[in-house]
Amino acid sequence: MHVPTKLLDDPADAVTDALRGLAAVHPELTVDLEHHVVSRNHDHHGDHRPGKVGLVSGGGSGHEPLHAGFVGLGMLDAAACGAVFTSPVPDQVLAATTAASSGGGVVHVVKNYTGDVLNFQMAAELADDEDIAVETVLVDDDVAVTDSLYTAGRRGTGGTLFVEKVLGAAAEQGMALADVAALGRDVVARSRSFGVALSPCTTPGSDRPGFDLEPGEMELGIGIHGEPGRRRVPVPATGVAREVARVSVAAIADDVPLDGEELLLLVNGMGGTPLLELQVLAGDVVTELTGRGARIARALVGNHVTSLEMAGAMVSVCRATPQLLQLWDAPVRTPALRWGA
Amino acid sequence: MHVPTKLLDDPADAVTDALRGLAAVHPELTVDLEHHVVSRNHDHHGDHRPGKVGLVSGGGSGHEPLHAGFVGLGMLDAAACGAVFTSPVPDQVLAATTAASSGGGVVHVVKNYTGDVLNFQMAAELADDEDIAVETVLVDDDVAVTDSLYTAGRRGTGGTLFVEKVLGAAAEQGMALADVAALGRDVVARSRSFGVALSPCTTPGSDRPGFDLEPGEMELGIGIHGEPGRRRVPVPATGVAREVARVSVAAIADDVPLDGEELLLLVNGMGGTPLLELQVLAGDVVTELTGRGARIARALVGNHVTSLEMAGAMVSVCRATPQLLQLWDAPVRTPALRWGA
Repeated sequence: MHVPTKLLDDPADAVTDALRGLAAVHPELTVDLEHHVVSRNHDHHGDHRPGKVGLVSGGGSGHEPLHAGFVGLGMLDAAACGAVFTSPVPDQVLAATTAASSGGGVVHVVKNYTGDVLNFQMAAELADDEDIAVETVLVDDDVAVTDSLYTAGRRGTGGTLFVEKVLGAAAEQGMALADVAALGRDVVARSRSFGVALSPCTTPGSDRPGFDLEPGEMELGIGIHGEPGRRRVPVPATGVAREVARVSVAAIADDVPLDGEELLLLVNGMGGTPLLELQVLAGDVVTELTGRGARIARALVGNHVTSLEMAGAMVSVCRATPQLLQLWDAPVRTPALRWGA
Repeated sequence: MHVPTKLLDDPADAVTDALRGLAAVHPELTVDLEHHVVSRNHDHHGDHRPGKVGLVSGGGSGHEPLHAGFVGLGMLDAAACGAVFTSPVPDQVLAATTAASSGGGVVHVVKNYTGDVLNFQMAAELADDEDIAVETVLVDDDVAVTDSLYTAGRRGTGGTLFVEKVLGAAAEQGMALADVAALGRDVVARSRSFGVALSPCTTPGSDRPGFDLEPGEMELGIGIHGEPGRRRVPVPATGVAREVARVSVAAIADDVPLDGEELLLLVNGMGGTPLLELQVLAGDVVTELTGRGARIARALVGNHVTSLEMAGAMVSVCRATPQLLQLWDAPVRTPALRWGA
């Protein structure tokens, strides 16, 4: 398989160099290059709020803008960035937790991968030793597979964006720790995702892609690290986007009722698929969802939860409530998601 | 060369289907599927402003989010979307001009390609017959080549984003037609771009890439349609991003002084390069620019002016003034660029 040219300096330093670049163009963020932690620079906006619940996430790098690109007003307070496709170690998560702590406790948003779960749990225990109360919200929105290469139970994927946006707004509005955590578990319960890969991706420094996918094949139910999905099928001669929309929405609808629901919708590119194609898919996904009686309340189309340069897309929905829509619409100011501020 | 799987339904309908998808998720936009024109739906926000100067752009599709993704409050009033990498015909541009007209005249933002220039000029004459005064701002910011495959003079590339954002804000603030046009010409004069390709791209329905680029090679000074740049060079073993930053900033600095300047900076992905890599490049570009005595006043990093799934990046700068920074910071609410609204 072909390995693409990487626009990096040294593959071994990819994450450090990317964080240095983030710092260079975002003075409103503080970047801790020792721990690979990105946090809000409250001195920049003078917006430090004692007692605000802190919101922390993190995970392996390679999914940009998730998570560091979602740090800022109305979303995350800090993100711990592991090596590419590798969980951050407990010390990194602890550093993020400390950076996010303003005395009101901290919520950890954790995607359900074995390493992430273990390391965030150890960090929560270390934080407890420092008298920082931590609640954990586990994200497991991917309906494609149960118990995969890196998970017991379902994987955390695109729905993470819904959780981080909604909880960030709730924390900004002064909601208390236990309530933010309970809201987060409700958002997870309301969120579902399903993804499709049209090409593999290659981690920096590797001489071969993470998996093989021949031209003319697509992998249904792919994860965000190239781990296997449900099955591999031939790409149809026409109607590729319609087929991806049909399979994705059917997998979600098999799991939760959509009829009569108001949805937050994310039509998410995996990194290498151009926006022209994501827009075509978005149209087909809306047709599938409205055909099942759902209404699109809000939608995002773009590369938000990625797998390096993988081609493909993921459909994520969250069955909204009036409260969730109000929190979704609240101001947000991060490198990758911004409105009203 | 390998042709990637396209997430489309029928390659011949790619632009129509993408616009249908845009309409499905953006009720605040009006999409004219006959003319492939996207315009602001003033009924949605109740923000119709008689006498406001209308701002229109357009060009070939395949550069998403440019231009349709920049339609909305504080930016374009309408965009005419040609076939992939093909100029819109005069009737399309006329339809966009009519949609954008509120009685205060219309500014055409035209990237300097022979077909675009001719077709926008014919549309301006047709608009004149309908008593719509049109002023044209020609964007030719690309320092890489003069007189290329599709151009006499320099090409219009990433700097188009600066022009559309700044003029959109100026029109929103009530600036008159001649002044908006003069401001636009000043923004063009202050803007420069240089791009590099790491892979080719393939137009929908084609069975081969638009150009050949072997693994291990990169093309310096690439355009946004895969047209040739300055020269093809081997990819260095390490420091790829540093080399791209060095060559790009040097090409720009050979053309305009940077010392003491405050810059708007766009580190733009060509479509297939992941954000992790663009962030690494952004760090190197800031090092190069500040090393030449410039200061980064504002920066955007992401896929804004693309060439389908081409891997690579473009560096665009605009030497700002206090007025330009105020207009850059003004509220904008479009599918792809949004803040303060």
